[in-house]
Amino acid sequence: MNARGDFEDLCFEDWMPAVRSRVEEALSRFLPPEETAPKRLHRAMRYACLGGGKRVRPLLAFAAGEFSGAASSRLEIVACAVEMIHAYSLVHDDLPCMDDDALRRGRPTCHVEFDEATALLVGDALQSLAFDLLSCEVLGARQLEMIALLSRASGSLGMAGGQAIDLEAVGHSLDREKLELMHTLKTGALIRAAVLLGALCGESLTLEEAGSLSCFAQRLGLLFQVVDDILDSTASTEILGKTAGKDAAASKPTYVSLLGLKDARDFADTLYSQTVEMLSPFGERGGRLADLADFVANRNF
Amino acid sequence: MNARGDFEDLCFEDWMPAVRSRVEEALSRFLPPEETAPKRLHRAMRYACLGGGKRVRPLLAFAAGEFSGAASSRLEIVACAVEMIHAYSLVHDDLPCMDDDALRRGRPTCHVEFDEATALLVGDALQSLAFDLLSCEVLGARQLEMIALLSRASGSLGMAGGQAIDLEAVGHSLDREKLELMHTLKTGALIRAAVLLGALCGESLTLEEAGSLSCFAQRLGLLFQVVDDILDSTASTEILGKTAGKDAAASKPTYVSLLGLKDARDFADTLYSQTVEMLSPFGERGGRLADLADFVANRNF
Repeated sequence: MNARGDFEDLCFEDWMPAVRSRVEEALSRFLPPEETAPKRLHRAMRYACLGGGKRVRPLLAFAAGEFSGAASSRLEIVACAVEMIHAYSLVHDDLPCMDDDALRRGRPTCHVEFDEATALLVGDALQSLAFDLLSCEVLGARQLEMIALLSRASGSLGMAGGQAIDLEAVGHSLDREKLELMHTLKTGALIRAAVLLGALCGESLTLEEAGSLSCFAQRLGLLFQVVDDILDSTASTEILGKTAGKDAAASKPTYVSLLGLKDARDFADTLYSQTVEMLSPFGERGGRLADLADFVANRNF
Repeated sequence: MNARGDFEDLCFEDWMPAVRSRVEEALSRFLPPEETAPKRLHRAMRYACLGGGKRVRPLLAFAAGEFSGAASSRLEIVACAVEMIHAYSLVHDDLPCMDDDALRRGRPTCHVEFDEATALLVGDALQSLAFDLLSCEVLGARQLEMIALLSRASGSLGMAGGQAIDLEAVGHSLDREKLELMHTLKTGALIRAAVLLGALCGESLTLEEAGSLSCFAQRLGLLFQVVDDILDSTASTEILGKTAGKDAAASKPTYVSLLGLKDARDFADTLYSQTVEMLSPFGERGGRLADLADFVANRNF
């Protein structure tokens, strides 16, 4: 049974909750049960992964899987691996030595609900588990390429590297090029990985298809972060489920602080148009990815 | 050129520094250069990995590689991957929310030399890099098995899980079974992974050989930790290069606190005899592993 078989006939409004629910169930299955020792660590890992989140990266993996005709039994695995990396990064980012945040997804952050040492180990163990998933399950001929992709997207030349640039930038002004590099690494790398991992679960793409999909994913990752910057400066803490306005409060450079709100919105519009353009040669095949780009551009949380 | 070709003729006293030097050079090559952005993060990653350490895990990987006739070009890769996981765990363990230690390998710990947020990212990025290495390089037909092995040894059912049990145990008394479980996970899992990864670089082992090697590695991992407990209570900070006596000071359960020094030494002797016994059917083929078990049992730092 492939992704088309499971979800293809759903309209986008039904497709999103169906995929989210599938991913939630799969995450719960792949995470060690609370009853398995060490229980407190496993309880905290489940707390950090389950019961919340937009699941943008899993949705992207499933949408890219529709593009390449992938089986949903594979897609749920790569979707969970990417989401575990994302969840680990949130747990570590929220720690007192990083952003020191008490609220995430409308609930206390992991180190507030448990303790700092446990939150540190939760992040560490979730990262291991993501690679465990990608190496143990059967994902086809390009499995090593998937692991290489996810590890690079996560490491010092990807997400963790973006965090490091972010740290160095606090209190400094970044030029636009440096800000784009930071966001491309910090958020973009994993968003891009989600798309490409989903695609790798299916049929081989032509060079041209792979190139377009990679560019789409890169622009979408940046779009996601620009919209995040806009929401951080305009939406309420209640709607976001995390502390609003904290980037400005921490003197962190954002697209809004660099360009102003209006130009940041214009930039988001430009990026959105670019994502649509990159999908246009593929017609209906890229429909789900286009719907997701639209969702990312217009989300209000 | 295989491990035998590179190192086989060396006596153990020459073999150890030769392998260490090979691993140091390989680590330096696999770590991103300091000049690559984000520079501070890469400088800290190199600080955490290079220029110190007994390199027990890389030595074990190379010794197991001699057992299975593996090429040293492969062994250096798995040795570096395991050592990166080990280095990340030390950086995270030393953080204020964990052991809060200022000294490691005779130098300031990573968060003291840099800062806590950077140390957090150093550990995260080193873990990613370990899996990057195992997925990108060419390691033969059993590469996915290697990645699965290392991820399980690192995660909540391995090293990170052992840390979590350690956290829960502070100020409590553990019975011997629970203490053995803690040490088997916290230190033993990665020691075992080092041996098996080295073996997986070479010829397939028979079921009997694989079983013996796995048992050897399991006992050796426990031996390593029992000796660590003994050294923590008897050696000086200067010789250890890390703070001595800190387990007792932190009311952490150890084999010395549980059994007393004399019985802990007897237990180490028993474990050492078991490791030798498991290798005896293999004669000279297991010679290097036997030498290493002897080194682990009798080290004084």
